[in-house]
Amino acid sequence: MTTRKIHDFLEHSRPETPCLVMDLDVIRETYGQFGRALPQAAIFYAVKANPAPQILTLLAGLGASFDVASVPEVEAVLAAGVCSNRISYGNTIKKARDIERAYALGVRQFAVDSHAEVDKVAAAAPGSRVFCRLLTDGAGADWPLSRKFGCEPDVAVDVLRQSWRSGLDPFGLSFHVGSQQTDPSAWYRALKEAAGVLQKLAEEGIIIRCLTLGGGFPARYLKDVPRSADYGCEIMRALRAQFGNAMPDIVIEPGRGLVGNAGLIKSEVVLISRKASAASLPWVFLDIGKFGGLAETMDEAIRYPLATAYGNAETIPFILAGPTCDSVDVLYELKPCHLPRGLKIGDHVLIEGTGAYTATYASVGFNGFPPLETYVV
Amino acid sequence: MTTRKIHDFLEHSRPETPCLVMDLDVIRETYGQFGRALPQAAIFYAVKANPAPQILTLLAGLGASFDVASVPEVEAVLAAGVCSNRISYGNTIKKARDIERAYALGVRQFAVDSHAEVDKVAAAAPGSRVFCRLLTDGAGADWPLSRKFGCEPDVAVDVLRQSWRSGLDPFGLSFHVGSQQTDPSAWYRALKEAAGVLQKLAEEGIIIRCLTLGGGFPARYLKDVPRSADYGCEIMRALRAQFGNAMPDIVIEPGRGLVGNAGLIKSEVVLISRKASAASLPWVFLDIGKFGGLAETMDEAIRYPLATAYGNAETIPFILAGPTCDSVDVLYELKPCHLPRGLKIGDHVLIEGTGAYTATYASVGFNGFPPLETYVV
Repeated sequence: MTTRKIHDFLEHSRPETPCLVMDLDVIRETYGQFGRALPQAAIFYAVKANPAPQILTLLAGLGASFDVASVPEVEAVLAAGVCSNRISYGNTIKKARDIERAYALGVRQFAVDSHAEVDKVAAAAPGSRVFCRLLTDGAGADWPLSRKFGCEPDVAVDVLRQSWRSGLDPFGLSFHVGSQQTDPSAWYRALKEAAGVLQKLAEEGIIIRCLTLGGGFPARYLKDVPRSADYGCEIMRALRAQFGNAMPDIVIEPGRGLVGNAGLIKSEVVLISRKASAASLPWVFLDIGKFGGLAETMDEAIRYPLATAYGNAETIPFILAGPTCDSVDVLYELKPCHLPRGLKIGDHVLIEGTGAYTATYASVGFNGFPPLETYVV
Repeated sequence: MTTRKIHDFLEHSRPETPCLVMDLDVIRETYGQFGRALPQAAIFYAVKANPAPQILTLLAGLGASFDVASVPEVEAVLAAGVCSNRISYGNTIKKARDIERAYALGVRQFAVDSHAEVDKVAAAAPGSRVFCRLLTDGAGADWPLSRKFGCEPDVAVDVLRQSWRSGLDPFGLSFHVGSQQTDPSAWYRALKEAAGVLQKLAEEGIIIRCLTLGGGFPARYLKDVPRSADYGCEIMRALRAQFGNAMPDIVIEPGRGLVGNAGLIKSEVVLISRKASAASLPWVFLDIGKFGGLAETMDEAIRYPLATAYGNAETIPFILAGPTCDSVDVLYELKPCHLPRGLKIGDHVLIEGTGAYTATYASVGFNGFPPLETYVV
């Protein structure tokens, strides 16, 4: 997964480790794959996955729209030359003054999942489009979504009805099947529920015109994942089963699926040690850990592929940990990772598939370590 | 726990939320308590708990020494006017070039827990003092230390022997009973093991002169914790039982115990919502969560006291969550927290005892939210 461009950059520039290197060509190619897999869908890039300005500029040029989580993300997208009508404020948890700021910046599309949020949007962004987020179970996702976002179908009906009465434009319904979702049929279950909500509102004369299928498209980590074309077929089949020819507009919001495989973290082995004379497994400590950008190793949820200069040399299991004095800064212990038996202090370890949810997760300076540096090639 | 100074600052300056406010008077008072509880011990402040320059300057003036985890922390301590001989590089995981940099800055004291680290220190910081960290079980700690740090007693003997042979000064043995340790007898068990290591080395003529008891001194969160005086008595009793009158020098490394109760985070209620028409519990979303500085709510390990302007009004259970689009950004759900029934959007919630391990844990910009601002009064 180390592209020629990333390899050449690391070879010639030799940046200090740890660092994240992103290859824009991979993002361009992946964006094209999404377009071909779901030609009917508008693509809103989930900026939170990786807000590097060069990525926003690339995607803006390719015609993408943008899903943002906060006012600073609105500003970052506008700074990339994007018109405000291509921005969707997808966070269902917004301060009234942040809605006002976004509205003042031209944003006219907001996510809601509760009556209270509709009141805020109606007051601070009058007449805007709103889309309501449904709760889904997230089964099949490596990084599931809990019950934090979305509401039950009957609440969604009521929230969209309230939006209409408040002078807002109840234009959409959204759901999210969970991040790194590897079961395409999850969309089928969610779409069925969504169709029920749309049907109920249509009977009252409220026509919801857009379905936002969220993200959840997986990046390829250690396990193989279905290809985007397979997802596209599955989703289109489910859409046709529910809506026949009366298809609503379709939006997808890929983040990880668009940029995850475009990035790689270069790290260095700081220490290799054994905890006891006859300890079961040796420890490898890298110069990056949970607080330096690998937060998604929490509970060992996401397992990144690791590469070294040793190629196919014999491997043995190691416990992998980060460099801070925090005891929870351990990456893989329950299920240790296999690394070359001959691995040495000072060797480099490439952590692949780390283009999403890494650089912005890094702590501002925990233990004094600076945040993860990003290079875009 | 809201001091007069913090109250007045919030009242008059009305900073944007979320923010952390630290009261230096509380740190000065707590430092004095540690000194009185363990008059024999030298106090090394664990800088990683909160590296705010004003805190370092205060503690430098009070005569503290400093336990650092990285070169930027060395630099921060030096910038506070501290002489390099009052700095201990306590991280057992160091790059060779970071040891070199620290050595060039005058640091002469380094932690080790493996043979490989001794080799690095011997090469990059010749002649320095080293102290070896023992593995302890961490039982009784709310935020235990796993097996990431420290080595078994027989390895410790060998590591200190190797240090001596490498021209280093094997001056100390350290252990850490786990952060937020609420069982004073944990020190008794660890000291017994440490005494065994010292005895074994003494038989070979290697005299270890210093015992570093680590941190682990608890801050007061929701549960009552033993007072520092009680800890002091317990530790002195354990020391006398092991060493009689041939007492080694004693070092303690409080971080959380010194600054945890000196700080308070002011946050704002962004949204209150119910997930279903008849959902069991409503959700309160604050403008700070796991990625904004409250990382230690992971697995609901640390339970911070919460205060509102409603005083003793009737409370009901809420699920408490942060403002990001990440589903794991939920603070308390398994054991929900009680907040006033009348709590409203826009109300402030004071999160107490948040002086340690908050501001530096904040992500650099996850979801576009800026890092937690610190004010020192």
